[in-house]
Amino acid sequence: MLIVPEREIADLMTRDAAFDAVEKVFAAMASGDAYNFPVVREAIGHEDALYGFKGGFDQAGLTLGLKAGGYWPNNLEKRGLINHQSTVFLFDPDTGKAKAMVGGNLLTALRTAAASSVSIKHLARSDSKVIGMVGAGHQATFQLRAALEQRNFEKVIGWNYHPEMLPNIEKVANEAGLPFEAVDLPGLTEADVIISITSAFAPSVMAEHISEGTHIACMGTDTKGKQEVEAALLVKADVFTDEVAQSISIGEAQHAVAQGLIKETDVAQLGAVINGTIAGRTSDDQITLFDGTGVGLQDLAVAASVVDLAVEKGIAIEVDF
Amino acid sequence: MLIVPEREIADLMTRDAAFDAVEKVFAAMASGDAYNFPVVREAIGHEDALYGFKGGFDQAGLTLGLKAGGYWPNNLEKRGLINHQSTVFLFDPDTGKAKAMVGGNLLTALRTAAASSVSIKHLARSDSKVIGMVGAGHQATFQLRAALEQRNFEKVIGWNYHPEMLPNIEKVANEAGLPFEAVDLPGLTEADVIISITSAFAPSVMAEHISEGTHIACMGTDTKGKQEVEAALLVKADVFTDEVAQSISIGEAQHAVAQGLIKETDVAQLGAVINGTIAGRTSDDQITLFDGTGVGLQDLAVAASVVDLAVEKGIAIEVDF
Repeated sequence: MLIVPEREIADLMTRDAAFDAVEKVFAAMASGDAYNFPVVREAIGHEDALYGFKGGFDQAGLTLGLKAGGYWPNNLEKRGLINHQSTVFLFDPDTGKAKAMVGGNLLTALRTAAASSVSIKHLARSDSKVIGMVGAGHQATFQLRAALEQRNFEKVIGWNYHPEMLPNIEKVANEAGLPFEAVDLPGLTEADVIISITSAFAPSVMAEHISEGTHIACMGTDTKGKQEVEAALLVKADVFTDEVAQSISIGEAQHAVAQGLIKETDVAQLGAVINGTIAGRTSDDQITLFDGTGVGLQDLAVAASVVDLAVEKGIAIEVDF
Repeated sequence: MLIVPEREIADLMTRDAAFDAVEKVFAAMASGDAYNFPVVREAIGHEDALYGFKGGFDQAGLTLGLKAGGYWPNNLEKRGLINHQSTVFLFDPDTGKAKAMVGGNLLTALRTAAASSVSIKHLARSDSKVIGMVGAGHQATFQLRAALEQRNFEKVIGWNYHPEMLPNIEKVANEAGLPFEAVDLPGLTEADVIISITSAFAPSVMAEHISEGTHIACMGTDTKGKQEVEAALLVKADVFTDEVAQSISIGEAQHAVAQGLIKETDVAQLGAVINGTIAGRTSDDQITLFDGTGVGLQDLAVAASVVDLAVEKGIAIEVDF
């Protein structure tokens, strides 16, 4: 039994490794080699916490297990701990024995960032120059940092409901040697790639804010009722997702489907694009939209990857369990 | 983060501690202080394994977490490992951080044995003399050993579909200084208490095999389609269970309910008897039936108990996670 504590993840895990793990597992999901189990998510009636399990099995990568944890909204204020707390547990699919326990907090940020990056690699125009951020919180910095590696971006623009948070992403842009410009929502039309990463319950980004040829990755909507972009945008765009069932029920596509604007069959798996079994972007004026809902298999994939790295570097703690 | 490996459980955990933990958590479930999460159970398409998660939260005992694992049917033959493999993970309900990891194999056997014992304590006649076993596999020995502590039994009788396995339970009886007698199914009428612990998909025990005044604990049925006793027996008996929702869907009561012989409201929580909010046995000629389906909170309760014992004895492995 191997243990990789949270404190070791930052030095071990790379954005490249997270990208590869997520790209591979999206492909495995689309080819039927990997699937996610039903998600358990419970308001436990204590500390206002949401707690649950996201599990899955990847027969291609032989990764079996779950991420357990959730959201403890009082952690920061009461205890100086981060509010999202999670742990990944991996099992040996040949025997059912526990195999590894891995801190899941930073990994969750990295796998979410990797997902929008994978979508940019496979769906954005290769000549994309301007990337727009909608949202400027802690997670937005991860999304932007990872996205900048996918194209030769020349400029970062950003909008946030609370403009005083924009320096978070300005800093990431400047570290990459890129200029940053705060824009209003219509200003997003300048972007070739957009990542939205908010926890909004009403759309900010309207269809008219998105130019032809843009790729937009909607990464914030993972719950019934949340919404980042106008449902009409999903009609104009070709829609891709990590998992169709989640996309249409708790993801960004829930609203367009509920309103009858698009059907389940209008939402395609990004993994199928990766595998080459369906087309991704086919023209320069097409709008592509990736609905990143977040699946357990992403967590398992990055955790398995970090365990390998920890073993390689002699950092994994071995416990005779 | 505390770790209690499987190999330590046998020396640490006592039948008394398992009994107390299970009795308390049944009571907490009935009073609304503890609840089980939806069960995840997946045939993963590898090694014919069944894998899943049973989670829950006990606000009274502040126990939060899950048992993960399942059934790997080729383990014994291929690898010399037991086929049931499980691990319990406990979380701090105040923060969401992982708190303990505990080997779950022996604990599962002990908590299942404790459940029928708790039912005997609260539902069997105090003058019970003869205990009957239906089933004689490995788990039957745990059920019998625990049950013998609840009444002044003078004799053990037993029936098994494969009679050559009966020496398993005869040995337990003899170790307790009691005579053992193999019987046919009609011979069960001699028993004051019966425990059935088989994995049958058709009933062996018919209503006519159960005398007035008997308490029967049906511990084997935990899946749709399994059945140990004739549905008509559930009409004659007063029916109790660990969790009503499981009892009527995957427990022994599923058949009587599906056939319209009894209603959901005819199945009572054993925890409510423990709490004294409903009556258990009210007469010496009443048949009581406990449908033990097995819930995640039982696993969490015994795991929390064994962690306490491991800390007390300095055996828990502490990992800075």
